[in-house]
Amino acid sequence: MCGVFGVTNAENASKIAYLGLFALQHRGQESAGISTIDEDKQLHTFRNSGLVSDVFKEEELVKLKGSTAIGHVRYSTSGGNLDANIQPITARIGGIPVSLSHNGNIVNSEEIRHSLEKNGAILQGTADSELVLHLMARSSKETFIERLKEAFEKLAGAFSLLILTPTHLYAVVDTCGYRPMSLGRLSIENAEKSSWVLSSETCAMDLVGAEFVRDIVPGEILSIDLSTGHNESCYFNMSTFQSKNKQKAKCIFEHVYFSRPDSLVWNIPAHDARFAMGEELARLNPVEADMVIAIPDSGVPMAMGYANASGIPYKIGLIRNHYVGRTFIEPTQNVRNFRVRLKLNPVRETVRNKRIIVIDDSIVRGTTSRKIIELLREAGAKEVHMRISSPPVRYPCFYGIDTPKRKELLAQHMTPNEMNDYLKSDSLGFLSEESLLSVMNDFQNKNKYKVTNFFHEEKSESSNGGWCTACFSGIYQDITAQKIACPEDFGEN
Amino acid sequence: MCGVFGVTNAENASKIAYLGLFALQHRGQESAGISTIDEDKQLHTFRNSGLVSDVFKEEELVKLKGSTAIGHVRYSTSGGNLDANIQPITARIGGIPVSLSHNGNIVNSEEIRHSLEKNGAILQGTADSELVLHLMARSSKETFIERLKEAFEKLAGAFSLLILTPTHLYAVVDTCGYRPMSLGRLSIENAEKSSWVLSSETCAMDLVGAEFVRDIVPGEILSIDLSTGHNESCYFNMSTFQSKNKQKAKCIFEHVYFSRPDSLVWNIPAHDARFAMGEELARLNPVEADMVIAIPDSGVPMAMGYANASGIPYKIGLIRNHYVGRTFIEPTQNVRNFRVRLKLNPVRETVRNKRIIVIDDSIVRGTTSRKIIELLREAGAKEVHMRISSPPVRYPCFYGIDTPKRKELLAQHMTPNEMNDYLKSDSLGFLSEESLLSVMNDFQNKNKYKVTNFFHEEKSESSNGGWCTACFSGIYQDITAQKIACPEDFGEN
Amino acid sequence: MCGVFGVTNAENASKIAYLGLFALQHRGQESAGISTIDEDKQLHTFRNSGLVSDVFKEEELVKLKGSTAIGHVRYSTSGGNLDANIQPITARIGGIPVSLSHNGNIVNSEEIRHSLEKNGAILQGTADSELVLHLMARSSKETFIERLKEAFEKLAGAFSLLILTPTHLYAVVDTCGYRPMSLGRLSIENAEKSSWVLSSETCAMDLVGAEFVRDIVPGEILSIDLSTGHNESCYFNMSTFQSKNKQKAKCIFEHVYFSRPDSLVWNIPAHDARFAMGEELARLNPVEADMVIAIPDSGVPMAMGYANASGIPYKIGLIRNHYVGRTFIEPTQNVRNFRVRLKLNPVRETVRNKRIIVIDDSIVRGTTSRKIIELLREAGAKEVHMRISSPPVRYPCFYGIDTPKRKELLAQHMTPNEMNDYLKSDSLGFLSEESLLSVMNDFQNKNKYKVTNFFHEEKSESSNGGWCTACFSGIYQDITAQKIACPEDFGEN
Amino acid sequence: MCGVFGVTNAENASKIAYLGLFALQHRGQESAGISTIDEDKQLHTFRNSGLVSDVFKEEELVKLKGSTAIGHVRYSTSGGNLDANIQPITARIGGIPVSLSHNGNIVNSEEIRHSLEKNGAILQGTADSELVLHLMARSSKETFIERLKEAFEKLAGAFSLLILTPTHLYAVVDTCGYRPMSLGRLSIENAEKSSWVLSSETCAMDLVGAEFVRDIVPGEILSIDLSTGHNESCYFNMSTFQSKNKQKAKCIFEHVYFSRPDSLVWNIPAHDARFAMGEELARLNPVEADMVIAIPDSGVPMAMGYANASGIPYKIGLIRNHYVGRTFIEPTQNVRNFRVRLKLNPVRETVRNKRIIVIDDSIVRGTTSRKIIELLREAGAKEVHMRISSPPVRYPCFYGIDTPKRKELLAQHMTPNEMNDYLKSDSLGFLSEESLLSVMNDFQNKNKYKVTNFFHEEKSESSNGGWCTACFSGIYQDITAQKIACPEDFGEN
Repeated sequence: MCGVFGVTNAENASKIAYLGLFALQHRGQESAGISTIDEDKQLHTFRNSGLVSDVFKEEELVKLKGSTAIGHVRYSTSGGNLDANIQPITARIGGIPVSLSHNGNIVNSEEIRHSLEKNGAILQGTADSELVLHLMARSSKETFIERLKEAFEKLAGAFSLLILTPTHLYAVVDTCGYRPMSLGRLSIENAEKSSWVLSSETCAMDLVGAEFVRDIVPGEILSIDLSTGHNESCYFNMSTFQSKNKQKAKCIFEHVYFSRPDSLVWNIPAHDARFAMGEELARLNPVEADMVIAIPDSGVPMAMGYANASGIPYKIGLIRNHYVGRTFIEPTQNVRNFRVRLKLNPVRETVRNKRIIVIDDSIVRGTTSRKIIELLREAGAKEVHMRISSPPVRYPCFYGIDTPKRKELLAQHMTPNEMNDYLKSDSLGFLSEESLLSVMNDFQNKNKYKVTNFFHEEKSESSNGGWCTACFSGIYQDITAQKIACPEDFGEN
Repeated sequence: MCGVFGVTNAENASKIAYLGLFALQHRGQESAGISTIDEDKQLHTFRNSGLVSDVFKEEELVKLKGSTAIGHVRYSTSGGNLDANIQPITARIGGIPVSLSHNGNIVNSEEIRHSLEKNGAILQGTADSELVLHLMARSSKETFIERLKEAFEKLAGAFSLLILTPTHLYAVVDTCGYRPMSLGRLSIENAEKSSWVLSSETCAMDLVGAEFVRDIVPGEILSIDLSTGHNESCYFNMSTFQSKNKQKAKCIFEHVYFSRPDSLVWNIPAHDARFAMGEELARLNPVEADMVIAIPDSGVPMAMGYANASGIPYKIGLIRNHYVGRTFIEPTQNVRNFRVRLKLNPVRETVRNKRIIVIDDSIVRGTTSRKIIELLREAGAKEVHMRISSPPVRYPCFYGIDTPKRKELLAQHMTPNEMNDYLKSDSLGFLSEESLLSVMNDFQNKNKYKVTNFFHEEKSESSNGGWCTACFSGIYQDITAQKIACPEDFGEN
Repeated sequence: MCGVFGVTNAENASKIAYLGLFALQHRGQESAGISTIDEDKQLHTFRNSGLVSDVFKEEELVKLKGSTAIGHVRYSTSGGNLDANIQPITARIGGIPVSLSHNGNIVNSEEIRHSLEKNGAILQGTADSELVLHLMARSSKETFIERLKEAFEKLAGAFSLLILTPTHLYAVVDTCGYRPMSLGRLSIENAEKSSWVLSSETCAMDLVGAEFVRDIVPGEILSIDLSTGHNESCYFNMSTFQSKNKQKAKCIFEHVYFSRPDSLVWNIPAHDARFAMGEELARLNPVEADMVIAIPDSGVPMAMGYANASGIPYKIGLIRNHYVGRTFIEPTQNVRNFRVRLKLNPVRETVRNKRIIVIDDSIVRGTTSRKIIELLREAGAKEVHMRISSPPVRYPCFYGIDTPKRKELLAQHMTPNEMNDYLKSDSLGFLSEESLLSVMNDFQNKNKYKVTNFFHEEKSESSNGGWCTACFSGIYQDITAQKIACPEDFGEN
Repeated sequence: MCGVFGVTNAENASKIAYLGLFALQHRGQESAGISTIDEDKQLHTFRNSGLVSDVFKEEELVKLKGSTAIGHVRYSTSGGNLDANIQPITARIGGIPVSLSHNGNIVNSEEIRHSLEKNGAILQGTADSELVLHLMARSSKETFIERLKEAFEKLAGAFSLLILTPTHLYAVVDTCGYRPMSLGRLSIENAEKSSWVLSSETCAMDLVGAEFVRDIVPGEILSIDLSTGHNESCYFNMSTFQSKNKQKAKCIFEHVYFSRPDSLVWNIPAHDARFAMGEELARLNPVEADMVIAIPDSGVPMAMGYANASGIPYKIGLIRNHYVGRTFIEPTQNVRNFRVRLKLNPVRETVRNKRIIVIDDSIVRGTTSRKIIELLREAGAKEVHMRISSPPVRYPCFYGIDTPKRKELLAQHMTPNEMNDYLKSDSLGFLSEESLLSVMNDFQNKNKYKVTNFFHEEKSESSNGGWCTACFSGIYQDITAQKIACPEDFGEN
């Protein structure tokens, strides 16, 4: 997971980008970077590992001159920790400086990498984003837009990109639309040109004072002319799909876990979606108890929804220490469940002698959940009932979420009953894939915003409303991912 | 506000202290430090400005050898930012190395400083804590305990201290007991000696796996013999009191704002106290509305209490960005209420067109509250009713809380009605001093823990239960503070 | 100017490389880097801006595992200060990791860069060295050696390279042999394989305890098989020469200025060459005086040679401050000739009332010389006679020395008489090109070391003994350089 | 050894001080610091470990406002590496901020420290300089000057001090005058007040453009009134002398080794003194040889003097690597005499098959000399004759030079013949104490500068011209040092 942010035609664009990235910090804490285009069409870039507020000081922002900027916060997915992978990445393509910020993950990167190297390309890092630049550089097409299209058509996987050149800012989302990207507008008094904002989430627009306009749609290349502020869109189609699944596949985990609750994601309020998941969870998995508590932070709205639907009061049962960050010290003597304690502490007076329903967003490996349950019992909880606002995660994600290997996923090996035994909870309940989709599609159906500029014939949302649920179902949109995840289905081990 | 933590007879005491400070990080982010005594009775100290996890890496902790440690996290109060003020401070007194961690504020420090310098003392920094060391160094008493007593008797104000020497760890609380300090015990298997823990709050005991034993009482000097693990107490009396008010004065703001909700403070659960304040607030200041929201984080339990007592649902209306820390960049274009936006963002879909009750812990200058109200209105709130879980703050604190000067306090100049106009809220309600004390004394009265080793005859809790409410009432325990706060009462301007 | 160093088959090769670079530090202070190949054929690289001893600490050297290493110290020539230009540079070529250290300067880099970018290459930095890697990567030849040859044949200019792959270390010198590179051998007891050392100068061999074996000759690719320690050579010819000048062109400034006096450069002792230049200068430009002084450090052996031939005593008249490095502070009040004073201070008691001959290695812009003369006069010198151990520098260097543009060269605009007036010296004398060559060729002729593996038919040393004197004569070996330096000769302005 | 520098009434005094310290860098590389007094009589101080150019950047210098400054470069002598020992040290004395820079070493510091601590003083670091401040702070005298005198009279040992207060700059030299301190004057056009400079060596005056005026004399307190620029002197007498030796004792090693050759030290040019030592050495210890070489840098003028007197040519036989600084890496394989090689490399072509006289300034432990001799033999030298420009060092220094303990001094255990065997030199010769004094007194006698404001009756220079030669003779000026150095003379072992 990463966050991208862009802005055009704004005085001190680097500062706006800084604030945008600051609001997207939850999407990636490993590195941060900003590129700008100045009046003389020069590209300036600064990037480093660390938090946004550590990487950039006034001094760096002042040097990033110009009224257009793109930025990136990086969460390590593929590509290791190499400095060469810190984004935005830059290159000269046909003599033109280009800067690129990428959120997502290319599935067929090994293949592309191999083919590029065979043809004499020299790759610096291991990040997918570099491949996009090389594909563009090697395209024989004449216009920049044609080069972009040719490059994208060779890719499989998820990519929400911002691409900055001396004359244009391009915003691109892959044909499935795995990751969100929204367009907004800054209202600047007396401005001659529109000042556009592009952001992974709308919470960044709130901070910089921009208005949400619409989402970038799957397969769209939005191109903003920096000299006039005008924008126009064209569309492309990735050639790497399995024939049957050519459809939208928005990552449902953006709503379950990633996004900030104050963001609109695909025009659905993340907080409300979580609250509704909690309500649905209460309906599907009721249990008698004294209170509902959350594993903060993402579990809080879910727990409040559960409490609302069940009538069981919501309480604060666990306190999160927000300073955790980079703590690494292990005590030498034995402190049980120490790693979890660093982040979460039970409110003893609250949980003692009580029957508790604990709401979490998901179970991946299960190790943390198990420890939290033990922690609560040590603090005196009489019963601990786990309720999870998503289905069991049984398959890895190849589209930008750093899930563990398939064999490390608890639900890959265990039934819910076995998981309950393993976690030592008194009971365990999940949201089914069907009910999660139903919650999300209820929002989607009453959604006031209507996508107009879109290939309805090609990417119907028929099957499930246009969500990627591969991590629950094992059904991937592209055959490369399908083969890696489920080699047995292809006669491979 | 600062946090202090100590531990005796524990393998790698520096790591335990590190974790203790980590749990107390909310009490001070400006600097952190640890001192240890090793087997050869050598004192080791490391301290620096920054967060606990930035100041200490494995390397530093390993060098801090020994089984006894004290630590400190500092919140800038008096004393500026000088490096020389980073604690624990150390000195040799009569050839013996001494390290000291201080939470609180000395009221008569100028007077003491002046007298020391006149007598040839050389002061390094501007922190109060240094004065304590000098008073001890210059005492003509023979035993260390007598020197401590003589020094403390010259002080006015708040001090909860840990003092480490090669042979003893001393824990001291001033005669009024302004700041909390608790004693706990680590349970180490097969240990020959007791392993004691001392901490400003009990949440740090939870993290290191210690059990709460009791609070250090006002006027107590607890002395732990490092060689045997035995402890004994003696008592002192500060000579600087006004004659009439020689009584306990626990800072009620520890419960209103400072402490972590998962801490026991003076044996009262902070979360429960806040929840009860919210309930009382609902009873005193009811209003019709669609929802109750909190200004996070301290306002959350209060808002839940208000919701509980009023029957109006609690909602998440504001999201706090936990990465704020050191951000300093101002946008060049006009973003309204920018500083507040950096920390808090309204959940638009939740507050739009709603009548909202907003719960905050206190109003000091009022500037932030005013901006939050404006932010909520911009996000579409129809009505905004402010409810404050404490009385108006009308007087400055001299006991360790960094409140502004009297003239900057909103309630100094305005009636609640005028404040409501200034804040542009639809209504404004406070908890009265009486009701706040009543909430706290209800807890205190049902308190199971009984203080046995205490001067009941001298420091009765009769008048108000033994709380300091000077910031509301203007009634201070010592005449120095009274004169600074209210010179008019003394015929001065 | 840069320095390169390599070593094979030595335990902790990174440490040997570190020491080698340390001895070559005078050839470049801007950045330093080392690459190693470990037992598993993995490439490790660490590089950063700064001095060798600042860039590398024990920690970094330990991580650079393996028994083969190459290193680089960089002096900024072409390529600006970009991080991407810090060497060794690395890339994967056909899937194989390659690391490259480059001393010299490619003359036709713009042309190559343009052609590469046109064909879709993405260039990271602006250093020439990257071009070599791209040419290799894009070669259609099958073997690595053939790819190297094809790449080199497209280059014009100076390049002394070390190239490290998982299986081989290659040492390459361009067809003219502008820059020195020597082969040496470590004597390690009981070693099964030879342990080779390659270095820009022999002083680095002295430090690591290696014996000088021979120089790498112009047009040679020496290839060391890392598994056996065997080496073999092949040869190439650059296609970019002017037809008439296909001959050796060793940079004579290596002896005049760059090399450390304790180095053998092309098998000639640098100290002795400088001493002989000073003697010849005394014969050509005698003058009556009380003493000969040097501008330290390179002028010292020259001044001693002048003193020896003239019978006038050598004295220490100027002291160099060796801490200069990064000082940048300008005094606000007027201190005359401040920049020069920072580096050099006259020994007043020595120069007062004396007639002084000052020996310097060269005059480029003349600004520093002028200030030194003024400094000496202020210190009381009665007469100041400048004697320069090289001819007037009239043309820029394109082969790795960072000389200013032609128009900034003092000798481009002035006759020696005019220069004497400008410098305000009492007299000024140079070594003629003829006499400088005669000094160097005297050494060369009595040289015991005989180059055996060499194309005698192609690269005769007939004309001038095989030295590049383009900066004095304006006669360059390749037409690209000739055109840039003297466009008027080609009908261009 | 340390360096101190001060300046008054100069715009941007911090920059002048920076440059002064830069020129004194050879006197101490461990730390650097500057204090200034600004227009509002505020004291500003910045200090850190590292070289002057590393510690101070433009930013720090700009913050050091004011027209008066003192600075310090520190060479670790007594006091360890504690941060608290970095100078200038500062304190408030009687409410007045004071900053102090100290060159020298207090001999009775343990005694003073003990007495201060007994009386309740709290000491921060372990440096002697802090004691001076405490003695001043505790003085009951009324005027600052009287307090200074009272403090100094309690000290034994060497101290050349600069003391800065909001109103005055004081320069002080102990009664023996062990360490040099000179007064100079900046010539600033149209200045209303004199701008004074104080410096350990005159080379710093050259750099900032100041004129040497005179030396501060032993027992002098020069006091400059910052408001008028006027200065006046008074005198004190240390009470800690042995009765018989109350006389001047200038450290003769300042001329043998420490000072920069371009400095005037006690009005004698350091370069000329060294040249004359070399000449005298040739007269006393002639030997037949092919060349004289120096161990750079201090040996160079001595070697040139030896060559001049003997008629044997001076040659460059060893090259010093000026980048040495902080290198710490040991090669894993065996490189003989590696540590010495890092600093010095023989010029092989010069020394091969030659009989060589090597000139060094002194022999302390002898380990380095032994290795250099071996290095020269390995490089082919036929004979190596060591000539030392000072007598054998047999006793430790307590006055600021960091010599090893008595038992580690080679000459303590060996006769010159035994030393010759140990060093494996072909012959070894020293300058006798008598001849060294005679060289120095020849300069002193023809010295034009006459000390007028001085106690001639008390501190005659009769016995030896007023030099401290304790390290050769074992005769110390104060009884504390005598007892530590030669306990056997006092009936102690």
